[in-house]
Amino acid sequence: MSKIKKISFKVNSYEYIKPFRIAPGTSLSTNNLEVILETEEGYVGFGEATPSFRVTGERIEALIPLESPINELLKGKDTKNFRRLFELIDKFFAFPSLKTALQYAILDALSEEIKLPVYQILGGGKEEIETDKTVSVGSIEERVKEAEEIFKEGFRVIKIKVGLNLYEDIEAMEEIAKRTKGATYIVDANTAYTPKQALIFTKELYKRGIDIALLEQPVSAHDLEGLKYVRFNSAFPIAGDESIKNRYDALRAIKMEAVDYINIKLMKCGISDALSMVELANTANIKLMIGCMGESSLGINQSIHFSAGLGVFEFHDLDSALMIKEDKFRGKYRIKIPYYIPN
Amino acid sequence: MSKIKKISFKVNSYEYIKPFRIAPGTSLSTNNLEVILETEEGYVGFGEATPSFRVTGERIEALIPLESPINELLKGKDTKNFRRLFELIDKFFAFPSLKTALQYAILDALSEEIKLPVYQILGGGKEEIETDKTVSVGSIEERVKEAEEIFKEGFRVIKIKVGLNLYEDIEAMEEIAKRTKGATYIVDANTAYTPKQALIFTKELYKRGIDIALLEQPVSAHDLEGLKYVRFNSAFPIAGDESIKNRYDALRAIKMEAVDYINIKLMKCGISDALSMVELANTANIKLMIGCMGESSLGINQSIHFSAGLGVFEFHDLDSALMIKEDKFRGKYRIKIPYYIPN
Repeated sequence: MSKIKKISFKVNSYEYIKPFRIAPGTSLSTNNLEVILETEEGYVGFGEATPSFRVTGERIEALIPLESPINELLKGKDTKNFRRLFELIDKFFAFPSLKTALQYAILDALSEEIKLPVYQILGGGKEEIETDKTVSVGSIEERVKEAEEIFKEGFRVIKIKVGLNLYEDIEAMEEIAKRTKGATYIVDANTAYTPKQALIFTKELYKRGIDIALLEQPVSAHDLEGLKYVRFNSAFPIAGDESIKNRYDALRAIKMEAVDYINIKLMKCGISDALSMVELANTANIKLMIGCMGESSLGINQSIHFSAGLGVFEFHDLDSALMIKEDKFRGKYRIKIPYYIPN
Repeated sequence: MSKIKKISFKVNSYEYIKPFRIAPGTSLSTNNLEVILETEEGYVGFGEATPSFRVTGERIEALIPLESPINELLKGKDTKNFRRLFELIDKFFAFPSLKTALQYAILDALSEEIKLPVYQILGGGKEEIETDKTVSVGSIEERVKEAEEIFKEGFRVIKIKVGLNLYEDIEAMEEIAKRTKGATYIVDANTAYTPKQALIFTKELYKRGIDIALLEQPVSAHDLEGLKYVRFNSAFPIAGDESIKNRYDALRAIKMEAVDYINIKLMKCGISDALSMVELANTANIKLMIGCMGESSLGINQSIHFSAGLGVFEFHDLDSALMIKEDKFRGKYRIKIPYYIPN
């Protein structure tokens, strides 16, 4: 038996090294909730919730008072029966970032006890994963400069945020492609284009001979029809992110043939839903990427172990901990740019 | 590291205690392939393949010569990275029973090493599962007698094979329902009805006030449209078995809205596909049962640990090892009729 003794919540605030800008807004800092889970045998598991008000409607203020009901729900339960605990935690579907932090903390405590890293509890799919790094929205010059810096740092996949000005986005892409030859590009509009703007964007890139690996969430989160329209008319693969928050959204998108890729973010759905989404996508021949919100090394750790464990993600967009100021590194992984090696 | 040193195959033959009769034919014995997997550290994992020529086209004669290529594929690989090994084994999709035996033997060896039962590696969803026991096809009198015996033995879910004579099937059901009050019934036609016969069957039961938990595979394996027709016109839930062999079949059936239940059998698909099917069904609100072919205690062990680990199956039809003669019990579970308790 590996009974849960106590679960504690702690708020940690981090500043971004420089403001992180995407089409819907700018972040200067991130407030994350640390979850500390102790078992009666003295094993401790950690998790982190990074609620996204914009994407899932969650507020950290609303997570904090859940410490007591969560303790009532999980105290005395055995971490070895983690699927049973995941199912209990799934009732908190309105708090998906908390679901992840709790579900991961259970796996982390179990991992300490059985001396098997979480990525191997999940199947040890890969030894290491490669992350991209992100260029914020900004002027053409700012974006080109940032992309060049990222490329020089050793990242080979560059994520470029777009959506504030269609024609500047196209110019920025052309300039970046010239200055970072050999890089792979993931472009993310974070819901900011109309379906027709998205098509102009992809057609212009195609015409100019600029290749991108995928265009993420070109249109409004609730416009699955628009997403499908873009997918069926774009030469480049289309990924759903804000439109696909949980396993049910994933099944609906698959049934509608709305996307080429699903961007799974643990903060949108929890480990339990993410496991379903992986199996759904694999079965339906839909490709996968994994993304993040504003996680510190403690939270990014979760996505590194999850994606390495499953071993099926084409792209890993797990750069938030590289963009914030942290006093202490908390991950159970090593960084060897552009790789993360879980341990 | 937990490297695979050697994988050996061994054929075991078992006789049925009494002939096992279903609509498509009768079995007197079953030939199973035992898989023994040894690691360099001396841990040993066991698996069993029960190929079903009728359902998946597999022949045991064709599995035996695969020992050498399987050793070439897996020797030196780490059992802790089981998802990576599952993916390699998935290439042997034409040999799904062998996939299961190999994938399970990997988990079993890992389980011995990390001292965690397989059902807990898979998540420890349930402490115990309840099995049904099966009434073969036969005369009305034979079936009633067998059902009464099963009920007296302590089983509360009785599976009844039908499909050779529609009107006798209805009479048999009526008589069984009278003599085993309080039992739950799973009825299995093993593809033998036409869609319209299946509707007559369900309508007659309904009219006579006989309640059944589900009707399994009423129509031909390839007739998904027929399955859907029966589902949409029957008062009782309809399960797909022969029609749903792997994860791709499951997704197709879900998209077509062809079934209420999926009967997962590890011998049809391997552990890897079964994991996908569980997540697909859960997401799509389709219920699950787990079934078997002619597994001995060694093979039934696999389905007990799988279904207890996932913890999401409504019905467990895992009675084959109760129906064959075995010199030695090989399961890592206890039997307390009607329960199995994995250990």
